[in-house]
Amino acid sequence: MLFEKVAVIGVGLIGGSFALALKQARACRQVVGVGRGAANLKLALERGAIDATAPDAAAAARGADFVLVAAPVAQVEKILQALAPALEARAIVSDAGSTKRDVIAAARKALGAKLAQFVPAHPIAGAEQSGAGAANAELFRGRQVVLTPLPENPAAAVEKVAAAWATCGARIAQMPAEEHDAVLAAVSHLPHVLAYALVHDIAARKNSEQLFSFAAGGFRDFTRIASSHPEMWRDICLANRDRLADEVAAFEKKLQQLKKLIEKGDGAALEKLFAEAREARNKWIRSS
Amino acid sequence: MLFEKVAVIGVGLIGGSFALALKQARACRQVVGVGRGAANLKLALERGAIDATAPDAAAAARGADFVLVAAPVAQVEKILQALAPALEARAIVSDAGSTKRDVIAAARKALGAKLAQFVPAHPIAGAEQSGAGAANAELFRGRQVVLTPLPENPAAAVEKVAAAWATCGARIAQMPAEEHDAVLAAVSHLPHVLAYALVHDIAARKNSEQLFSFAAGGFRDFTRIASSHPEMWRDICLANRDRLADEVAAFEKKLQQLKKLIEKGDGAALEKLFAEAREARNKWIRSS
Repeated sequence: MLFEKVAVIGVGLIGGSFALALKQARACRQVVGVGRGAANLKLALERGAIDATAPDAAAAARGADFVLVAAPVAQVEKILQALAPALEARAIVSDAGSTKRDVIAAARKALGAKLAQFVPAHPIAGAEQSGAGAANAELFRGRQVVLTPLPENPAAAVEKVAAAWATCGARIAQMPAEEHDAVLAAVSHLPHVLAYALVHDIAARKNSEQLFSFAAGGFRDFTRIASSHPEMWRDICLANRDRLADEVAAFEKKLQQLKKLIEKGDGAALEKLFAEAREARNKWIRSS
Repeated sequence: MLFEKVAVIGVGLIGGSFALALKQARACRQVVGVGRGAANLKLALERGAIDATAPDAAAAARGADFVLVAAPVAQVEKILQALAPALEARAIVSDAGSTKRDVIAAARKALGAKLAQFVPAHPIAGAEQSGAGAANAELFRGRQVVLTPLPENPAAAVEKVAAAWATCGARIAQMPAEEHDAVLAAVSHLPHVLAYALVHDIAARKNSEQLFSFAAGGFRDFTRIASSHPEMWRDICLANRDRLADEVAAFEKKLQQLKKLIEKGDGAALEKLFAEAREARNKWIRSS
């Protein structure tokens, strides 16, 4: 058994799925959940993701040997501050935030002498659904979890967090927080911004109803991530704003290049670019 | 029975699926296919999409009462030119092009006195697969087919084309070609260009392998249409370049607005925009 008592702060899609996976693997004796929504917590109890609720993060952390903070990144500092006094000396804290530099800065402020107990992590397994109702024990199977350990972390703490996510079926990667935020800006944060931008652009038109009525499967898949959680993505955009702005700028450059080819009617260059993109994507799909 | 002999010029995903659907509904006695690839035609024969092949469009059209041109839009003029002399007086010709103004211009040049026999159409049912191997009789079920009839078309010819697509399970819409091209630029052509641009942008980086390795489900769905057929999309971009350039410009404006909010760190405006986009998309999904 990996843990005795696990505390999950934020029993949504990620926190709930983590709890379900640990319990299914019998990797812990008890999970206590904390959350802002009473109905959501009740659902998490009914679904067996958590065994009990606690009134706040400190109460949940008391006696726990593992604490997962799975809330929007902007709330991490406040949560860590609240639970720090209650944190056992043997306990490990981790998070599930989509950005890591800001979460680390928050932990440095909030945890003080207990900083070494905090191992930052990011399970790359979002979905446009949210809440405990969408949680499932298989969410992380085959997915990647990126750990961005602190110099202060003992090796054993990092290994323990890796073991917890491996129990959920995830593959574990490690990199510096700076690198994580740059990589995710390109392959996750930018596409979300583009999808939101496209849907907003269409929705703001006078003939938006007509436009939507002729949108088909390609549009549906392209914009799926525009159904993601607005608050969560607001926080990600703010936390990673420098890298994300870099990525938007790089994309704008590429789009301008493409627009020029379209306006010039340069069919050969368009076909070459499309073929290169298709080949790159198909190669990725085959290997993933 | 709707038709005696149907000729399909271009037995790919669209032409092959149309033929399979007509045959499954016993709506025609015979389908003759023409195509550039011998292996693909053989596959179409084996799969029962076509009953026979013809060496060229004229040979296929001879004796046919319905001809579907389902080739990339840039080839339509040449194909219509080739089949015009062989076209029976009672025959109806239609197409499946994703752009309509250029196809109509091509038909005006190629068909001369037989122009009234040509009813332009666009089945909105693409997929990133192509070829007769991907064809299936259910491809058009519940999908929309937009007819953009010419002033010269007799009502009976338009009705016949509508009946053929209705036989495939499609819903029929009608609008002017200009309107069609503007609508599709927004909800289909622009998203394709954005997806190609994003994948190309990532693939051109030094660390593209690392970037792809951390791309997840959101990226996969967002970029699915970047696996579409490069030649087909080259032709669409060229044929609809004015409307598409308008759409790229509108998107650039929206993206610039979003980038400013990110750089300023305006969380309230970001969350509002994301929430509006999500609500618009969810409303569309619920109604479609």
